[in-house]
Amino acid sequence: MSTTLLSGRALAQLIQQKARDEARDLDIDGLRPTLAVVVATDDGSTHWYVRSIERAAEGAGINCRIVDLGQDATGQVLASVLKDLSAEPSINGIILQTPLPPGVDADELVGHIAPEKDIDGANPLSLGRLAVGQPSFAPATARAVIEILDHFDIPVAGRNVVVIGRSAVVGKPLSLLLLERDAAVTVCHSRSGPLENYTRTADVVVVAAGRTGLLNGGHISAGTVVIDVGTNVLPDGSLVGDVDEASVKGIAAALTPVPGGVGSVTTSLLLLHTVEAAREQSRALVRGTAV
Amino acid sequence: MSTTLLSGRALAQLIQQKARDEARDLDIDGLRPTLAVVVATDDGSTHWYVRSIERAAEGAGINCRIVDLGQDATGQVLASVLKDLSAEPSINGIILQTPLPPGVDADELVGHIAPEKDIDGANPLSLGRLAVGQPSFAPATARAVIEILDHFDIPVAGRNVVVIGRSAVVGKPLSLLLLERDAAVTVCHSRSGPLENYTRTADVVVVAAGRTGLLNGGHISAGTVVIDVGTNVLPDGSLVGDVDEASVKGIAAALTPVPGGVGSVTTSLLLLHTVEAAREQSRALVRGTAV
Repeated sequence: MSTTLLSGRALAQLIQQKARDEARDLDIDGLRPTLAVVVATDDGSTHWYVRSIERAAEGAGINCRIVDLGQDATGQVLASVLKDLSAEPSINGIILQTPLPPGVDADELVGHIAPEKDIDGANPLSLGRLAVGQPSFAPATARAVIEILDHFDIPVAGRNVVVIGRSAVVGKPLSLLLLERDAAVTVCHSRSGPLENYTRTADVVVVAAGRTGLLNGGHISAGTVVIDVGTNVLPDGSLVGDVDEASVKGIAAALTPVPGGVGSVTTSLLLLHTVEAAREQSRALVRGTAV
Repeated sequence: MSTTLLSGRALAQLIQQKARDEARDLDIDGLRPTLAVVVATDDGSTHWYVRSIERAAEGAGINCRIVDLGQDATGQVLASVLKDLSAEPSINGIILQTPLPPGVDADELVGHIAPEKDIDGANPLSLGRLAVGQPSFAPATARAVIEILDHFDIPVAGRNVVVIGRSAVVGKPLSLLLLERDAAVTVCHSRSGPLENYTRTADVVVVAAGRTGLLNGGHISAGTVVIDVGTNVLPDGSLVGDVDEASVKGIAAALTPVPGGVGSVTTSLLLLHTVEAAREQSRALVRGTAV
């Protein structure tokens, strides 16, 4: 069986185009969507990543304000900056970029991001709203998985979907999104016992554990669709996922590559979320109500 | 195989005793834990249920303030009462009792319950905090399932647990609690396809769908533990769960009865949560910090 590679690149272009079109429509009304990215590290690859968001934003007609607080920023300063950005009408979306300085509690800080500007679904309130079906932004990576499934017409309703990984940024929000789409959702993780007990009967397996080679061909059945959310940097600097591609190819019906799969869609969704946030905020202004 | 009945009554007594002991310890410091129950209906069975909470609270040394706003209460009045109770230092726990008047949006109202007083885990923020591992109260029914499993020494770590039902009050919070306990968790529901595909290989099945006879002996394997969260009132007024007890008995290793199973533990947990909330709030006062 030949395994179809599900590239995310064309989809990323489509989403970016959609963000650009909608940003332009908003701009006519005098509102240019603006994304704030808060950084507090001197880690080179983080700055590289943030600049890539900035470039993508500019390409989509979205302002990007990078708020670099330096590697010595305190939790207090970070909290106050997040509160200010949350209150500032010209800011539509806010990302708190990790890593943060040692001793700073990211889990506590994200609670200061206003839910309506929380375009990467970092605030626990966003996750809770997602769980109860209220409007909220899912983490971009979790939504990227759904967008890829939709783009390639892979149904999940009534099907057996296994998510490997129980993180608050991927596994848990993704399982909520899949439940909303009427899948039967199983969440496995490092302590849940043999993977193959669950993955062998799955229609779709999503791997988001951050462990190179975690899922191999022996874990799946012919025809399984495998979505690889892992992004692991090897000693030589190359990027690989959580899937042992070589052994999965020829068994899986389809597989997302790393790089060029889920990760390539994520940034475009941050931009689309920013535009969606800007639109909602401008509507709320027109209605004269706080968001 | 004979099926053990997992009665919740003795466990309920134990939890109530624990609440009573801890309430007494707090009372020495001059603080009597207080639970507020907000009601806005003239439904008889609801008032009967609220009085049963009140009686149980009194028995555990907990004040219970029933705030009856009548069946014509508006959303605005309800919101303002919930905000006032959230701000009132003498109130430690808050329950918003359903049903609410027609047109009133319960989902929106529960957002006004302060998370530290949200002892039935109704605010989406409580659910989000549960998901990210921050301190929060789970809905009492979801925690009741965990307490029953613990009480009868039924392990879930590394085991296959299937939850039927994806509600925000049971299925979703319970799946988070089970993940925290290292289970592999599958959530099924009305649209996820044939139940037996998932339940036949499960070690533990929790049914929380609100449908009489949903799970029968044909769905499970010898040795499965079945927890029945359903509470369905039959035309003759009797209470039954979601499990067809007759066909499950003799196949399941153990089964919670309805009534007398999960439901009987729930009220005692509301009391324990109120005492836990009171303790945290008094500690926060001592520290001089807002909770």
